[in-house]
Amino acid sequence: MFFASDNSSGVPVQVLEGLARANEGFAPGYGGDALTEQVRARIREIFEAPEAAVHLVATGTAANALSLATFCPPWGAIYCHRVAHIEEDECGAPEFFTGGSKLVLLNGEHGKISPQTLAEKLQGAARVGVHNVQKGMLSLTNLTECGTRYSVAEVSALASVAKDHGLPVHLDGARFTNALVAEGCTPAEMTWKAGVDVLSFGGTKNGLMGVEAVVIFDPAKAWEFELRRKRGGHLFSKHRFLSAQMDAWLTDDLWLSLARHANAMAARLEAGLKAVPGATLAHPRDGNMLFATFPHAAHSRAQDAGAAYYFWPGTQSPAGNDSAPMNARLVTSWSTTEAQVDQFLALLAQR
Amino acid sequence: MFFASDNSSGVPVQVLEGLARANEGFAPGYGGDALTEQVRARIREIFEAPEAAVHLVATGTAANALSLATFCPPWGAIYCHRVAHIEEDECGAPEFFTGGSKLVLLNGEHGKISPQTLAEKLQGAARVGVHNVQKGMLSLTNLTECGTRYSVAEVSALASVAKDHGLPVHLDGARFTNALVAEGCTPAEMTWKAGVDVLSFGGTKNGLMGVEAVVIFDPAKAWEFELRRKRGGHLFSKHRFLSAQMDAWLTDDLWLSLARHANAMAARLEAGLKAVPGATLAHPRDGNMLFATFPHAAHSRAQDAGAAYYFWPGTQSPAGNDSAPMNARLVTSWSTTEAQVDQFLALLAQR
Amino acid sequence: MFFASDNSSGVPVQVLEGLARANEGFAPGYGGDALTEQVRARIREIFEAPEAAVHLVATGTAANALSLATFCPPWGAIYCHRVAHIEEDECGAPEFFTGGSKLVLLNGEHGKISPQTLAEKLQGAARVGVHNVQKGMLSLTNLTECGTRYSVAEVSALASVAKDHGLPVHLDGARFTNALVAEGCTPAEMTWKAGVDVLSFGGTKNGLMGVEAVVIFDPAKAWEFELRRKRGGHLFSKHRFLSAQMDAWLTDDLWLSLARHANAMAARLEAGLKAVPGATLAHPRDGNMLFATFPHAAHSRAQDAGAAYYFWPGTQSPAGNDSAPMNARLVTSWSTTEAQVDQFLALLAQR
Amino acid sequence: MFFASDNSSGVPVQVLEGLARANEGFAPGYGGDALTEQVRARIREIFEAPEAAVHLVATGTAANALSLATFCPPWGAIYCHRVAHIEEDECGAPEFFTGGSKLVLLNGEHGKISPQTLAEKLQGAARVGVHNVQKGMLSLTNLTECGTRYSVAEVSALASVAKDHGLPVHLDGARFTNALVAEGCTPAEMTWKAGVDVLSFGGTKNGLMGVEAVVIFDPAKAWEFELRRKRGGHLFSKHRFLSAQMDAWLTDDLWLSLARHANAMAARLEAGLKAVPGATLAHPRDGNMLFATFPHAAHSRAQDAGAAYYFWPGTQSPAGNDSAPMNARLVTSWSTTEAQVDQFLALLAQR
Repeated sequence: MFFASDNSSGVPVQVLEGLARANEGFAPGYGGDALTEQVRARIREIFEAPEAAVHLVATGTAANALSLATFCPPWGAIYCHRVAHIEEDECGAPEFFTGGSKLVLLNGEHGKISPQTLAEKLQGAARVGVHNVQKGMLSLTNLTECGTRYSVAEVSALASVAKDHGLPVHLDGARFTNALVAEGCTPAEMTWKAGVDVLSFGGTKNGLMGVEAVVIFDPAKAWEFELRRKRGGHLFSKHRFLSAQMDAWLTDDLWLSLARHANAMAARLEAGLKAVPGATLAHPRDGNMLFATFPHAAHSRAQDAGAAYYFWPGTQSPAGNDSAPMNARLVTSWSTTEAQVDQFLALLAQR
Repeated sequence: MFFASDNSSGVPVQVLEGLARANEGFAPGYGGDALTEQVRARIREIFEAPEAAVHLVATGTAANALSLATFCPPWGAIYCHRVAHIEEDECGAPEFFTGGSKLVLLNGEHGKISPQTLAEKLQGAARVGVHNVQKGMLSLTNLTECGTRYSVAEVSALASVAKDHGLPVHLDGARFTNALVAEGCTPAEMTWKAGVDVLSFGGTKNGLMGVEAVVIFDPAKAWEFELRRKRGGHLFSKHRFLSAQMDAWLTDDLWLSLARHANAMAARLEAGLKAVPGATLAHPRDGNMLFATFPHAAHSRAQDAGAAYYFWPGTQSPAGNDSAPMNARLVTSWSTTEAQVDQFLALLAQR
Repeated sequence: MFFASDNSSGVPVQVLEGLARANEGFAPGYGGDALTEQVRARIREIFEAPEAAVHLVATGTAANALSLATFCPPWGAIYCHRVAHIEEDECGAPEFFTGGSKLVLLNGEHGKISPQTLAEKLQGAARVGVHNVQKGMLSLTNLTECGTRYSVAEVSALASVAKDHGLPVHLDGARFTNALVAEGCTPAEMTWKAGVDVLSFGGTKNGLMGVEAVVIFDPAKAWEFELRRKRGGHLFSKHRFLSAQMDAWLTDDLWLSLARHANAMAARLEAGLKAVPGATLAHPRDGNMLFATFPHAAHSRAQDAGAAYYFWPGTQSPAGNDSAPMNARLVTSWSTTEAQVDQFLALLAQR
Repeated sequence: MFFASDNSSGVPVQVLEGLARANEGFAPGYGGDALTEQVRARIREIFEAPEAAVHLVATGTAANALSLATFCPPWGAIYCHRVAHIEEDECGAPEFFTGGSKLVLLNGEHGKISPQTLAEKLQGAARVGVHNVQKGMLSLTNLTECGTRYSVAEVSALASVAKDHGLPVHLDGARFTNALVAEGCTPAEMTWKAGVDVLSFGGTKNGLMGVEAVVIFDPAKAWEFELRRKRGGHLFSKHRFLSAQMDAWLTDDLWLSLARHANAMAARLEAGLKAVPGATLAHPRDGNMLFATFPHAAHSRAQDAGAAYYFWPGTQSPAGNDSAPMNARLVTSWSTTEAQVDQFLALLAQR
């Protein structure tokens, strides 16, 4: 009953097997090996983007911060949601990698920015001169930090506003695959066809040990990204071990299956919560993450039985009144089982 | 016959097994798991440094640059050898992570700085005021980039000069274990007992997929390092997979055995080169790396047979005269076999 | 009728005379001259802070950004009001000089942060671990960007909250003297006695060509500030010409007289606005700046007659309806005359 | 007898008069005033560069560091002479403003880089991949730090090598006018016609209080420079006081007269030194600076009589033997008088 985060899960056996296969003999370092080239080609194919630059890194923070730095100058404003991972969970990595750009925070229900909110903000920023930071970039997250999903149409609408102001668009896709399979569209539709310029294509939360692909749809930025990656200490010498994981993950649509399973487990949780007295959802569930409010007593039963999850926002334990409703962030992963979900639901629903 | 770099080797089976063991179930992220704590404790024990802060990262550049940034202010000079990895092979990562410090390059035979050279440089820097960068830090490399080794006495002498000027000492130990087993001393003697304040303890070149431990002997700097690591995108969420590799590597002295083997293969190479007409060594061999000059014709035979290594410095192929001697960098690893060495030597020695 | 900004005024004749006096002969550069030492001593005396470090720079942005960088690490959050100059008008200088810290924006009426707002924000930030930026610093502005004043008690209350969380306090005093004479307290009471650690003591807006003093009440930070100043290109070689201006300004309480005059002119404006039909103040007036709303027709008359000021916020000219009220920012300076004020008021009040 | 530095001199009366003239009334801030536009136009005219972007800043370090940052990426190498001001006297400002670029130091007699040295260095750097910093920029200094001059032909030859490698060229012209009048060419010939892309056109050492113009011959970089200037805290609000100085200086060729005078005084010194027993020059004298070696006893007489200058390199006083020759840096300025020179020479030559 571990619902604290999808990054608490391990990796499927295919990934271990991939590592073992890649371990044979010597291989050129720093991405010069054949397997890396194969993985890059495969990702270009999946995204129907034969010109795209593809780079692997090991953490989502690296993928995001390097992407932002490659597209936004130090004096640029990066527009993002108030609860975006780049704002709340990266200890200022975007500011560090960009050389001091400014994150401009936008409000929006359920973790989503509306095109109107963005348009108004950019309109207001339109005529500042040298005194203020300049309009730099838009960064979206899909799935959002609230577990909701931007539809293709919503991404398009937001990117369209950004383009009206000449801004490139970054997509933090730490849970991209969860959004993708929920939306039921193609990777291309979810990204460059909707106006995304650079994607952090997350593997770690969906079954890898620590691999993210940065996909840059305009290859003119590729060399700058490579230099920034190296300079950031994010170029692996034994790069084949990143590629091997990604290769296993992309083979036979494993990445899609893993995300579908995680989403299905969250759907099962959602369905089961309807039977829990007093339980409500704080946000619509679109993928593998849900934010549920339920009574203190239910929390106590679950936690006493070993269930792990975060109270959100804030990590405080509740005090006092047993019936006080509390907000739980529940994240499922590729390795969550039906039995775990059902056991958890049974504890909550118990009287 | 792959002698291009020790980072072209894979990992021993114990490391794969360690990953598989660590893959069971859910685990807290970001280093909060039990295995990580166990690895930290083990490294403290190995270094006889019960208070030391131990942090894992995935690349040597990250280990070095984060270490330097933690100990040297932006306006500090980092004294290092002219051919140090931090100067030549990290695309400016030290400057990036420190916020713009300056690497001050020292000459020295065989990749080694002499205490006298350091003392003279620091003496000259002693009275500059606000106009120049300030004395910041000393960074040594052991094994050096020329494959030579600083003895414990040499490290002590250099650190002593640094301390006379109030400078902390960093040791880039990408090939630390190769130096250690060659020197035949304890890890403590090679580091903090000799005056080293922070060590990049390299695992990648000696049998891991991509794991380095930063060992900070004064724990007062630990929290700053953690923030810099996170902010640099170098904190792994599924941290257990770094720890699992390190755990396997430290178990039953595997790390020492791997380095001993690599060194033995280089010694075999060195011994065999004596039988190659016209072959000479550019630097003394102390560990698993040697720089040999031998005739063009020998190169041709070796390369035609598939041997891989770098010309050094410079990567140009030689032109013209068959007998022109050329410099090869030959690096052995834990996975180099006697047969590979002997085959290579036979090609060189052939008439 | 120039009310656009106090930095549109020139300098009083005493400042020109001071420059001429200082122009005699040769003088050591970089602040090593006798006049500079004399000015530093005088500022320490004025602030009853015999140990304080005093440094001159030429711009307010430099004073602020260098102060913040000296007290806040790159991973620190700088808490400030949403409309603070450091947020809105310095093109990201704080982020640049600090190495990428994050400005956390607080709301508050009339440009002022309340102790409660600050306390709540810091409380919420209290338990974040390595994932978020850390609590770094508080930056206040007095006079605020809305022309209002923090009283000594208010500064004390805010600084007290900051100290509870271990945060140093910066005061952006671009219009410090205007606040000081309005409050009627001593410079010490307005700063270090109330908990301020570092002050940008502004001269430019109050009669100098471009001189600000940074006063650091804890001299332990002095050397770091000097290095940052030099490294930022803000150390003047012919430093005596900064000191000469400051010297003239501090002599015979000229600085206080200039600010009193500017405030009096704003008070005259305020009083006169009461006679303007439909005119209201958006913020209380505490010093030399007021934000007034009056009908479109009044704007037209004033502007046709050559009055200069900004619409605020936003610089758009109004369109259409003559009676629509519009917000004007009106700033008086040491050189504003009663005649200018009266002429302006007459234009507004005209029917 | 003040020969320590030309920045120890004051300003000619015309500059004070210019400040007084500019002090009338209100003026728009931040360079939006008419005088600033006039000065920009005048500099474009002088340089026969009608498209050039011209920006004023107050210090040479700002002019240099902002210029470098505008043309060189963070991962770029800036090639400069080992004793360049940007390397030795700016406390790492270039590294700070560029975001961590690396200064690559070139040797060369008398402070001058030879085209061959540059070509060899760039040739060696030609084939590095992502591992090393990239070829970024060439920075020359004219007059050099050794007081020597690059001829137009020499600047052209160096710039030509740089262009062969795609590198932009910066000229640190802190003493540009001294070089210019010595060379007897036009400003255009000394800069863009010879391949210079950006010039730090120094006023401070040649008679201003603290004004340097950055002249960017390709205006495409102008807006980036403006943002960097603002973000660096180097945009003056009361900008007219920078422009007024520059205006007075450029009027009636004052700038040229001042430099001619300074050079003439240095020539007088040089000539007189021939009569000093044991005196020799360490470098040829080309402008207003010379490096002379003369006996200890001569130093003692001069210093006892109040002469001020630096021992170079190093500031140590000599010890012991009266006849030991010592190196003095002697800098003349617009305000050095013949009497001062002659008095000094008399002291040296005395027996």
